[in-house]
Formats: sequence, C-alpha cells, structure tokens
Amino acid sequence: MPRFFYTGIHVSDLDRSIDFYTKELGMKLLFRGPIEETGGAVAWLRSKRSKQLLELNWYPSDYKYGGKSGLDHLAFEVDDLDESYTTLTKSRKGEIEPFLEGSWKLGYITDPDGNWIELGQRLKRQPKKKRKSSTLLS
Amino acid sequence: MPRFFYTGIHVSDLDRSIDFYTKELGMKLLFRGPIEETGGAVAWLRSKRSKQLLELNWYPSDYKYGGKSGLDHLAFEVDDLDESYTTLTKSRKGEIEPFLEGSWKLGYITDPDGNWIELGQRLKRQPKKKRKSSTLLS
Repeated sequence: MPRFFYTGIHVSDLDRSIDFYTKELGMKLLFRGPIEETGGAVAWLRSKRSKQLLELNWYPSDYKYGGKSGLDHLAFEVDDLDESYTTLTKSRKGEIEPFLEGSWKLGYITDPDGNWIELGQRLKRQPKKKRKSSTLLS
Repeated sequence: MPRFFYTGIHVSDLDRSIDFYTKELGMKLLFRGPIEETGGAVAWLRSKRSKQLLELNWYPSDYKYGGKSGLDHLAFEVDDLDESYTTLTKSRKGEIEPFLEGSWKLGYITDPDGNWIELGQRLKRQPKKKRKSSTLLS
C-alpha cells in the first residue's frame, strides 16, 4: 500500500528558499543535490521534533514540468511500482510511465484535481560480494 | 522553533478527493469537518506506516484565498505565535495577523515564492475544575 512520503514544492531560487526554510523557519537541510533527468536540483528539509519531510524542487526555466511556486508533487513510497502503477491507472490516466532514477523506480499519476502524485519504489541495493583478502586492494 | 506539521492542498470536490486518497492511495481519513471562518471544509489523511500528514482544503468559490488545485499552505506548529510572527515578519511582510480559530492561534506569512506558511499555536485547554459530586448531574 502506498505511504505518503513527502511534499515537494516549486521554488524559483534554491539557495534563497533553503535560507528561508533553515534560517527563518529553523528546518534542517538533510540533503541537496542535482537531478540529472531534469537539469534541476532538489533539497530535503525537516524540522526538529517533526517527521514531516519537505522537498524543494528547482527546475531550469525550459523544463516542461517546471514551475515557480506552489505544489510540485506529493510523493508516495510503494513496495512494487509496476503493480501500484497498473492498479492506479485502471481508473485514471497514467502520466509518466515507470522509469529508473538512481536507486528509485518512479512513476507519476495525477489526483482528481490534476495534482501530481509521484509513486516511488526504493530499489534494493545489489548485495555486496564477500571480499577475499587477496583481491581487496585492486 | 517552528515544526513542519502538515501540507494542505486545494481540492475542488472534497468527497471525490477523499475517495481518491483513501480508496486508491490507501490513506486513512483521520478527521473531516467544516471551517466556519472560510465557509469551507477540510479533511486530514495519513498513510499507514507514515507520519506525514496531508490536509485537503475545500473552499467556496467566492472565498478570496480559495483555489481549485495545487498547494494551499505548509503548516508549522509554534510554541508562541506572537513571538514567532513578530520575529518572522521582521524580514518579510506578514500576510494575516494572528487570530484565534477554535483551539488554535494562527497567523500567515509567505515564503520567498509566495507560498503560504501557516503558523499555529495550539492553545492550552482551560484546566477543568474539580467536580463535586453534587453538581455532576446538572
């Protein structure tokens, strides 16, 4: 069953918004990095004494799904993306078919008002091979 | 220090959106009720195995802050609203001055992109008077 994971909002200047959410609202910056697929960047924030996650989404101005403010997407984690995507798109149009992004498999649908819903399956890491002493230094 | 508390999104049909988020995305409806101040209504939802809170905000079409989709506001809980509001509005314009709503004191500012930030202080309930047996049944 999908689990609501975080809220992503559009920002037009990532540094400025990180400053606002950390310095003025006291949130902690957990992660910041580029998103190759979009040419944009994201930051993850959380308040002390809260489990709520906020993602800031910055996109280049020519990115087709970009925006300057407002909701970007609501993210839900799922155990099996293909299964969830197939089930959810029985009664509504799928928007972006499942694809791989780093250690996630992602797909997008929309809610009844057109808000983007990201479905994400965390891919299991390949189990590391047991190292043998003689090959460790290669 | 403010604590990120939930995300509120605009919906144009509260029943339809509750159906989508509960039946299709498997969230649990925690609360639903009217908001006297706006003439609208809200619903609160959470997924099993997640602490993230989602609020659905429905407004009458003539409500000045209403909207049909997208972000309504990001809510932060604070310990002392007047103090937080005063501090935060030193460097930016306040939008809605502190006011009382039920068991909360609320105030609104905006982030650098104009997204609404709700600051809310949970008001302490008046301590109940010790009841004496002879007055209990009135």
